[in-house]
Amino acid sequence: MAKSVFYHAGCPVCVSAEQEIITLIGKDNVEIVHLGESKNRISEAENKGVKSVPALLTPTGNVLHINYGASLADVKG
Amino acid sequence: MAKSVFYHAGCPVCVSAEQEIITLIGKDNVEIVHLGESKNRISEAENKGVKSVPALLTPTGNVLHINYGASLADVKG
Repeated sequence: MAKSVFYHAGCPVCVSAEQEIITLIGKDNVEIVHLGESKNRISEAENKGVKSVPALLTPTGNVLHINYGASLADVKG
Repeated sequence: MAKSVFYHAGCPVCVSAEQEIITLIGKDNVEIVHLGESKNRISEAENKGVKSVPALLTPTGNVLHINYGASLADVKG
């Protein structure tokens, strides 16, 4: 299975969701991207359809917005 | 691993999320509950912390609200 990508920004909601996602789909099946630290990947996330974090980009290209931590605009700062 | 429970109400957003979740975590690891058809389980979902559908209740008892289809109030009708 292709990897999913979990975008987050270090917020409490993000960290909690990250743990759940890793437990559910397996650490090896998901790349974790911290957009606050990897700001060069914000535009990538935007292009994929990420509107807020935490969000999971699935191997099929769909974005699952999980709970609500912060908008992408907030992450850009 | 204990099963997760995916609560939905048949909305397009729900169906799309359901397919992704089944692909990601495996059909055998998740129970699918259609709250529109199983209205007797709405109060169970509410008690677990579900505010809107689609939502995934994880084995650890956390609720991941995925995207946004409808509020639980809408499902009650």
